[in-house]
Amino acid sequence: MKAARLYNYDEKCAGPEFLKVEQVPDPRLESQTDVIIKIGGAGLCRTDLHIIEGIWRTKVEVKLPYVPGHENAGWVEEVGSSVRRYKKGDTVFVHPLVTDGLCPACRGGNDMYCENGRFPGIDSDGGFAEYLRVGERNLLPLSRGLEPKDVAPYADAGLTAYHAGKKAMKLLEPGQATVLVGLGGLGHIALQVLRALGADEIIAVDRSDAALRLSKELGADRLVKASNRTVQEVLDLTHGLGAQVVIDFVAEGSTIDEGLAMTRKGGYYFVVGYGGTLKVPTIDLIVGEKSIIGNLVGTYSDLQELMTLAARGKVRLATRQYRLDQVNQAMTDLLNGRIEGRGVLIP
Amino acid sequence: MKAARLYNYDEKCAGPEFLKVEQVPDPRLESQTDVIIKIGGAGLCRTDLHIIEGIWRTKVEVKLPYVPGHENAGWVEEVGSSVRRYKKGDTVFVHPLVTDGLCPACRGGNDMYCENGRFPGIDSDGGFAEYLRVGERNLLPLSRGLEPKDVAPYADAGLTAYHAGKKAMKLLEPGQATVLVGLGGLGHIALQVLRALGADEIIAVDRSDAALRLSKELGADRLVKASNRTVQEVLDLTHGLGAQVVIDFVAEGSTIDEGLAMTRKGGYYFVVGYGGTLKVPTIDLIVGEKSIIGNLVGTYSDLQELMTLAARGKVRLATRQYRLDQVNQAMTDLLNGRIEGRGVLIP
Amino acid sequence: MKAARLYNYDEKCAGPEFLKVEQVPDPRLESQTDVIIKIGGAGLCRTDLHIIEGIWRTKVEVKLPYVPGHENAGWVEEVGSSVRRYKKGDTVFVHPLVTDGLCPACRGGNDMYCENGRFPGIDSDGGFAEYLRVGERNLLPLSRGLEPKDVAPYADAGLTAYHAGKKAMKLLEPGQATVLVGLGGLGHIALQVLRALGADEIIAVDRSDAALRLSKELGADRLVKASNRTVQEVLDLTHGLGAQVVIDFVAEGSTIDEGLAMTRKGGYYFVVGYGGTLKVPTIDLIVGEKSIIGNLVGTYSDLQELMTLAARGKVRLATRQYRLDQVNQAMTDLLNGRIEGRGVLIP
Amino acid sequence: MKAARLYNYDEKCAGPEFLKVEQVPDPRLESQTDVIIKIGGAGLCRTDLHIIEGIWRTKVEVKLPYVPGHENAGWVEEVGSSVRRYKKGDTVFVHPLVTDGLCPACRGGNDMYCENGRFPGIDSDGGFAEYLRVGERNLLPLSRGLEPKDVAPYADAGLTAYHAGKKAMKLLEPGQATVLVGLGGLGHIALQVLRALGADEIIAVDRSDAALRLSKELGADRLVKASNRTVQEVLDLTHGLGAQVVIDFVAEGSTIDEGLAMTRKGGYYFVVGYGGTLKVPTIDLIVGEKSIIGNLVGTYSDLQELMTLAARGKVRLATRQYRLDQVNQAMTDLLNGRIEGRGVLIP
Repeated sequence: MKAARLYNYDEKCAGPEFLKVEQVPDPRLESQTDVIIKIGGAGLCRTDLHIIEGIWRTKVEVKLPYVPGHENAGWVEEVGSSVRRYKKGDTVFVHPLVTDGLCPACRGGNDMYCENGRFPGIDSDGGFAEYLRVGERNLLPLSRGLEPKDVAPYADAGLTAYHAGKKAMKLLEPGQATVLVGLGGLGHIALQVLRALGADEIIAVDRSDAALRLSKELGADRLVKASNRTVQEVLDLTHGLGAQVVIDFVAEGSTIDEGLAMTRKGGYYFVVGYGGTLKVPTIDLIVGEKSIIGNLVGTYSDLQELMTLAARGKVRLATRQYRLDQVNQAMTDLLNGRIEGRGVLIP
Repeated sequence: MKAARLYNYDEKCAGPEFLKVEQVPDPRLESQTDVIIKIGGAGLCRTDLHIIEGIWRTKVEVKLPYVPGHENAGWVEEVGSSVRRYKKGDTVFVHPLVTDGLCPACRGGNDMYCENGRFPGIDSDGGFAEYLRVGERNLLPLSRGLEPKDVAPYADAGLTAYHAGKKAMKLLEPGQATVLVGLGGLGHIALQVLRALGADEIIAVDRSDAALRLSKELGADRLVKASNRTVQEVLDLTHGLGAQVVIDFVAEGSTIDEGLAMTRKGGYYFVVGYGGTLKVPTIDLIVGEKSIIGNLVGTYSDLQELMTLAARGKVRLATRQYRLDQVNQAMTDLLNGRIEGRGVLIP
Repeated sequence: MKAARLYNYDEKCAGPEFLKVEQVPDPRLESQTDVIIKIGGAGLCRTDLHIIEGIWRTKVEVKLPYVPGHENAGWVEEVGSSVRRYKKGDTVFVHPLVTDGLCPACRGGNDMYCENGRFPGIDSDGGFAEYLRVGERNLLPLSRGLEPKDVAPYADAGLTAYHAGKKAMKLLEPGQATVLVGLGGLGHIALQVLRALGADEIIAVDRSDAALRLSKELGADRLVKASNRTVQEVLDLTHGLGAQVVIDFVAEGSTIDEGLAMTRKGGYYFVVGYGGTLKVPTIDLIVGEKSIIGNLVGTYSDLQELMTLAARGKVRLATRQYRLDQVNQAMTDLLNGRIEGRGVLIP
Repeated sequence: MKAARLYNYDEKCAGPEFLKVEQVPDPRLESQTDVIIKIGGAGLCRTDLHIIEGIWRTKVEVKLPYVPGHENAGWVEEVGSSVRRYKKGDTVFVHPLVTDGLCPACRGGNDMYCENGRFPGIDSDGGFAEYLRVGERNLLPLSRGLEPKDVAPYADAGLTAYHAGKKAMKLLEPGQATVLVGLGGLGHIALQVLRALGADEIIAVDRSDAALRLSKELGADRLVKASNRTVQEVLDLTHGLGAQVVIDFVAEGSTIDEGLAMTRKGGYYFVVGYGGTLKVPTIDLIVGEKSIIGNLVGTYSDLQELMTLAARGKVRLATRQYRLDQVNQAMTDLLNGRIEGRGVLIP
C-alpha cells in the first residue's frame, strides 16, 4: 500500500520533505481481536509536527521509519476471528488508543491509561496510509450519511477538546468564567463543547481576528484580542478576580504565565497545547491555591459522548482536504498557519 | 503589650535579629464582630522565615513594622457588641483568616477565598504578641483540658496538612499509593490525617532518619530515605507505575522534578512547601496527564473536622516551647533544623 | 399593617375562606442583624395549600394564627444596627430561610440545614402582609429595572427548581436523558435551568396540552402526554433503558410508581412535589440500583447562581398578579389549576 | 456432574427440601472467551432464599430446573480459544456478573450495568455444582495460600458490602456518623470496609448480642441493641441530628421507618437487604432532604479493591462449611439464623 513515513527527526521542522510517500507492505491481522481499517481520512495534527521535531523521541519507543497519523476514520476491511460487532464495509471512527480491556485502568473506565496500550501513529504505524491495523475496542460506528473524511479529526482533536472541556465543566459553577486561549483546531471545538455542556461565561483569547470572528459565531460571550494587555482585559471582564478555568491550547511562549495570571483563586489552568516549558515560582500556586491540569486525549466513553453532541448538531468541524501524497504540502501549510480548521489526508 | 515586630526584610535570612521584641499599643475592637484574644501560644512557621526573606512582599500589602504570627490559640479577652457565642475567658483556637461571612466564597463554604479576608500575621498584626484582634468567625472552642500552647500549631500547620490530605483523599481509590515528601512539621500531621481518613498505601520520603522513624511510628507503610535513587525506589514500590498522589512539603531543589517523576499517569503532584520554582516541559504534563495542585491553608470547616480527629486521638502534635522574647533564638533553631515537631512562642 | 392569617387547618382544603385578611401589628427588629422588608410581591405556592391541609402541622412548630408566604421580594424598610450591606430603599429578593451563618452547616455552605434556621411563612410570620422581618443574610440585591412583583417566585419556586436541577446535572453525562414530570410552576423553571446547565435530552411529561406547548417553546426535546402508556413511551424514547434522572414535580397518585419504572439502572428518581406516599418493594431499588432523592429549596449560593441565569435571560418566569385581599380567590384558582405560571400577591 | 437444582418455588420457604441434589450434564465452553471453573466453594446467601420464595421470578427470566449459587471461587478447568490471562489450574475468584466489556456501561467502568450481562446463579446455572461456566472477564487471580472455600463469600457478600461502603464514604465527611443496621454476613464486612476506608464514627445496631460483640471486636465506636428505642438512642448519640448515612442490611419490618427516622437532614438511607416494602410519606423526604439509595453488588474494580483490603488483613471473613449434598440443611440453618458468618458449600 501507499504510506507516508518518517525517516529522520528534523528538530527545527525545516522541511520541505518531512515524510516520504512510498509503497510499504499492507498491515495484517495479528490477534483475534484485530481489525484492519481502510482509511477514509486521517487528520493532521500539531503533534505530527512535534513528532518530526523529535519531542516525543524520549517519551515513547518507536523505530524509524514508521507511519504517523493518529486521527483516523474509514471502513472495516478485515476482522479477527473473535470480532463480533463489526464486519467488512462498516463505516467507523477509530479511537486513537488500542487497549486491552482487562487491565485495572480499562476495567475502571479509564482506558486511556491502559497498561498495555498501543497508540498507532505515535508508537506504531498510523493512518497516513491506505490501511491501518487497530483493535475491535477502538471502533465506533459512524452514523449513516457521515463521511470518514469529514469527521476523522473528531478522533483526536475533537476527543482531546471534549475531554478537556468535560473535565473543566466538573470544576465550574454557574456564574464562573472560562477562558479559552487559542481558538484553532482544538480550541474551536472546545468552545462548542463547553457551550453544549452548559458553561456560563466563555471568554475567547486569540491573536487572529479570523479566529475571534469564528469564536463569536460559535457563541463566545467575550472576545479578547491577544496582546500585552490580555491579562488585564480578562481581569477587567471578571470583576478583577480572574477565571475559574483557563484552557490553554497554545501553552507556548507567554501564554503560560498569562494563563496562570488570569486564573482566579482556587482556579484551574489547563495545559492542552505543549512544546514549551512551564516555569512558576511555587509561591504563586500557594497564594492563590491554583492548580495546573494536564490533559491527554480522552476515553472511549468520551468519544461516544462527543459523537452524541455531533449527531445533535451541537458540535461542528471545519476541515481542509489534501491527497495523501500532498502530505508535505499539508504540513507546510499547518506550520505556517494556513489551514483554517483541520487538515485531513485522503489516500 | 509586648510584641515581636518585623522592621526590615532580610533576603538571606542571615539574622541574628529577625524580629524586635518591644512594647506596642494593645489592639482594640474595631467592629461589632471583633474579638480580642489573649495569646496562649503562637506557632512558628517556615512561612515566617519566608516573610522575613521578603518573598511575600509583592503578594500582600503590609506596612513595616508589623507583628507576624498566624498560628494562634488563647483566651477571649474582649468581644464586640454583636458577638453572642463567646465571652471573656473562653479558650479558643483561631482560624487564621478573618472572613466576612457574606461574600459569595464565604456563602459557598470556601471562606479561605473570602473577598474581604484579612490574614493576621501575614497582612496585618499577628500573634507574636500578648494580644491579637480577630473576628467572631475565626474562633473555635477548645475542648476542656487542652492548653492553647499545646495545640496552637493546629491552627495553621495542622489545618494546611489536613486540607491537603483531605483534597488528596478525594483523588485516591483503595489500592492506590500516596507519597509524602518531607515528614517534618506539616508532613507528620498529614501522615496521621491520611491514615485517619483511610488512605491505603503511604510511602514516606525524607532525608532524616529521625523523621523516617517517626513516620514508621505514625503508621507509614513504606519508608524511603531520600537520595538520588528516590524516584526509582518509589517506582519499584508501585509496580513501576508511580503514586496516584505525591504531596510535597518541601517543594524546593530536586524534590519538584522528582515529585512529578514519581507521579503515575493521571495522578496528582501536590505543592505545599514553597520557595522554589517549578520548571516542567509541558509535554511531561500531557504524556502522563498529570496535574499540579496548589494548596493554601484550609476552611473553617476543615479546622472543625481536624479538631474532631484530634479529639479522638487520631492526630497528635509534637511541640517545643519558647518564651516570646526568645523569638530570634527560635527562628535560628527552625532555620537550622533543630526543632523537632513545631516551635511555639508563649508570651 | 394588613396581613392574611391562617386561623384553622382545613384538611380537605374546602375553603372558601382559607386565610383571613386583617390588621395586625407591624413586625419589629429583634436583633442587630434583622431587616424589615416592605413586601413588593409574595408568591403563592402549593405548599401554602399543604399548610392549610395541616400536612406540616407535625413537621414544624407554629402557633395559629400566623401569616403564610415564603416567596418574597420587596424593599428594605429598616435595618438592624450591625447591618452594613443594605439600607432603606434597596430592592431585594429574600432567600426563604433565615440562617445564623455560624453553625457547621452554614460554615460548610449548606445553609439550608442551618441548625438555628427560621423559615418565615412556614414556622413564623411570612410575606402575605405589608411587612416582613428577616435577616441580613437572607437578602440578595435585585438588579436595576426588575420589579419585586415580577420576580418574587424565584425566591422559592425558582430556587427549588434550580436546586433540584443542579443536583441532577451532577448525576448526568452527555447522552443521558432526563424526564420532567409536571411542567407547571416549578417544572417549567427546572426545564429552563436544565437547558441552561447543559442537560442533553429532556423529555417533558404532562397531562395538559398547554403545559406541553410551553415545554416545547422552552426547549424540551421530547413531549409525552401523560396517560397509562407514559412509562412505555419514555422507555421507547430511551432505547428501552429508561432515563438517568426523573424529576417528579407532582409525586402524587400514579406518578411515583411510574417515575421509578422509567428510571434506568443506576438512575435517580427525584421527589420534588409532595403530599402522596411512596410505596416501593425494596427489591425494585436493588435490582436496578435505583435511588430516590429528596429535595428541599436551595442554598443562598444556589439563589445567586439562579439570578445569574435570570440576568442572562436564560430563565424566565410567567406570573399572574392578585391583590393581597384577593388571597382566597387566588388560592381557589391555584387549587383548580386556573393559574398559568405562578400567582403573586401584592399588598 | 453433581449439582443442586431448584424445581419449584416455595413462597413460604417451608422446606425441608429446597433444592434437589442430582447428576446433571457438565457445562461446556460456548464462546471464545468462556472459562469453565471447578468450584472450590460456593457461598450461601439470603438471596438464595429469596429466589426460592419466588421474589425474583418477575425480575429475571430463568427456566426451572436450574442451579443457584452466585458466590463462587475455585480453579480454572478449561479456557476458550481467545483467553490469554488464565490457564488450567489457576486459582480464581469469580466476579458474579458475566459482562461483554464493550457496551457503554462496561466501557465507562460500570460493568454491573452491562447491557448484555448474565448473572450465573440468578438467571442461569450457578455454582451449587462441581463446575460452572463464566467468562474471562469474571475472573480475578487468588493470591497464593488462599483457599477458594475460605474466600468465596467475598465474591458477592463481600463485594456488595464493599460497594455500599465505598458509595457511603463518598457522602461522608469527618465528624459525621454512620449507622449500620444488621451486623450479619454483609454487615460485619461493611463495618470492616468502612473502618478501613476511614469512616469516622460507626454505630452498630443489631438485636443479637453476639453480633454486637463481634462489631465491638471489629471496631464499631458505638453499639445499640435493637429495640423500640433504637431511633431515640441513635439520635442521642448524634447530638439529636441523626446519622449522615444509615446502611440497612435488613430492610424488612420496622427497620425501614426507623432507618429513615435516624437519618439526618441532607443524609442518606442505604437499602441493601430486601424483601420488605418501603412506605414513606413524600413530605418526609422533602422536609429533611433525605435520599434513599439502592445498592446492587459491585463492579469488577470494586472487587479488586476489596481484595487489596483483604490482602492487607484489613477485612476478614467468618465462614461455616457444608458439603454440597448438605445444601438443604445449610439453607435451613440460614433460615433459622444458625449460621455465624457465612455458609459455604463445597462440592
